[in-house]
Amino acid sequence: MTRYALKVEYHGAGFSGWQRQSDVSSVQGAIEQALSRIEDGPHTIAAAGRTDAGVHALGQVAHADLEKPWDPARLMGALNYHLRPARIAIVDCAQVAPDWHARFSAIERQYLFRLLMRRAPATHEAGLVWQVGHDLDLDAMRAGAQHLIGHHDFTTFRSSICQSASPVKTMDDITIERVQGQSGTEIQFHLRARSFLHNQVRSIVGTLERVGAGAWAPQDVKTALEARNRAACGPVCPPQGLYLTHVVYPDMPWGK
Amino acid sequence: MTRYALKVEYHGAGFSGWQRQSDVSSVQGAIEQALSRIEDGPHTIAAAGRTDAGVHALGQVAHADLEKPWDPARLMGALNYHLRPARIAIVDCAQVAPDWHARFSAIERQYLFRLLMRRAPATHEAGLVWQVGHDLDLDAMRAGAQHLIGHHDFTTFRSSICQSASPVKTMDDITIERVQGQSGTEIQFHLRARSFLHNQVRSIVGTLERVGAGAWAPQDVKTALEARNRAACGPVCPPQGLYLTHVVYPDMPWGK
Repeated sequence: MTRYALKVEYHGAGFSGWQRQSDVSSVQGAIEQALSRIEDGPHTIAAAGRTDAGVHALGQVAHADLEKPWDPARLMGALNYHLRPARIAIVDCAQVAPDWHARFSAIERQYLFRLLMRRAPATHEAGLVWQVGHDLDLDAMRAGAQHLIGHHDFTTFRSSICQSASPVKTMDDITIERVQGQSGTEIQFHLRARSFLHNQVRSIVGTLERVGAGAWAPQDVKTALEARNRAACGPVCPPQGLYLTHVVYPDMPWGK
Repeated sequence: MTRYALKVEYHGAGFSGWQRQSDVSSVQGAIEQALSRIEDGPHTIAAAGRTDAGVHALGQVAHADLEKPWDPARLMGALNYHLRPARIAIVDCAQVAPDWHARFSAIERQYLFRLLMRRAPATHEAGLVWQVGHDLDLDAMRAGAQHLIGHHDFTTFRSSICQSASPVKTMDDITIERVQGQSGTEIQFHLRARSFLHNQVRSIVGTLERVGAGAWAPQDVKTALEARNRAACGPVCPPQGLYLTHVVYPDMPWGK
């Protein structure tokens, strides 16, 4: 058995999420099926983050075990061939140690949330951004986000079906940028943490949008966090603006 | 009758192109149909550039005549409402003089062609870029493009069904940039001219790609141009990387 790490990019639309489920199309299921086309299965792969339906990835990481040794570049090519026409692509591949684990070896996850600020409906970016028709105050959102940095009980910003043993997490960074995109002004939220709770990014971005719109004061984010109560959260924003961009390991399989 | 200029963005997939045709879906037809929802028609609109099937626009310009006077912002909102769910959006709107013409008043057209350099299939950008699996030499493409700048007979770079009275055009600028996009390295071609021949941009980019790949020398572009022969052209590249980005008028309807 040889273990391979796979860096995976996907378009979240059309998938019920990362995790394999019976009778619905999942990213995990599609990759396991592609693996079974190159080596008899069943195959079970593990990923760094179990993304929800509609959520995209630019740098999801998974690992797979294969009997036959493969040149990583050829394995990547073969999987991409069998994945077509699903909007999933293996963009990097490397052999790793048998005890290397895509989920448990990871020490940081990075997410991007793209919000497009404009009234006219998005055409090229439909399904790739969350569209908001009003202006947002960047400074207010940044001030609100500062209350979430560090070690906190994030019960407020956690889905009621979250399976994590503890609601206590450390948020390392939230950077909010204004970016002039092809279709107008985007607000991009970049979040970094060792690990995230279920719906944590979407709960945070949805709450910060309320701050940017002026409906909440930045200080209200602190009050919501300290309430440790799901009901204190702002609206959870939709999934199509969310991207799992990068997973960090002490020893990166592809050296970057 | 009041004339309105419309700045139009659209996703080219799913349309047979700009021009209305019976029995197929066109951008012109969709906008004329939206106009007929707000004022009895028939309506006939004119555009700065008649884009082909699959070609996108970020800044196509059209004009429409309406009996009832409209506030431009409300007209834009009403049209976008009736255009849903087509991937067409009116992104600017202004009242113009009755003799202002989207096509004949235009003094410059600007096109962008996006080429994504990577082997793994595109996921988020599928249908929005032309994907090429090999590296391209930017300097060689720039050297090749220089032969096309200025006043020339572009017969080589013109579709055999082009209806333009003359193959002589002035190419004002071709800028080629390397851009680090979300999904990898893009080569972006920016072309500017008063007007273009049918398939001219795709014929030029397809030829320059051959130069970038090393199959053609930069000097071969000059030889092809001087041949004034369609058969001397390189391969015409696919439409999905092409965007009509901007149309310039002596008096811009929206002041930019």
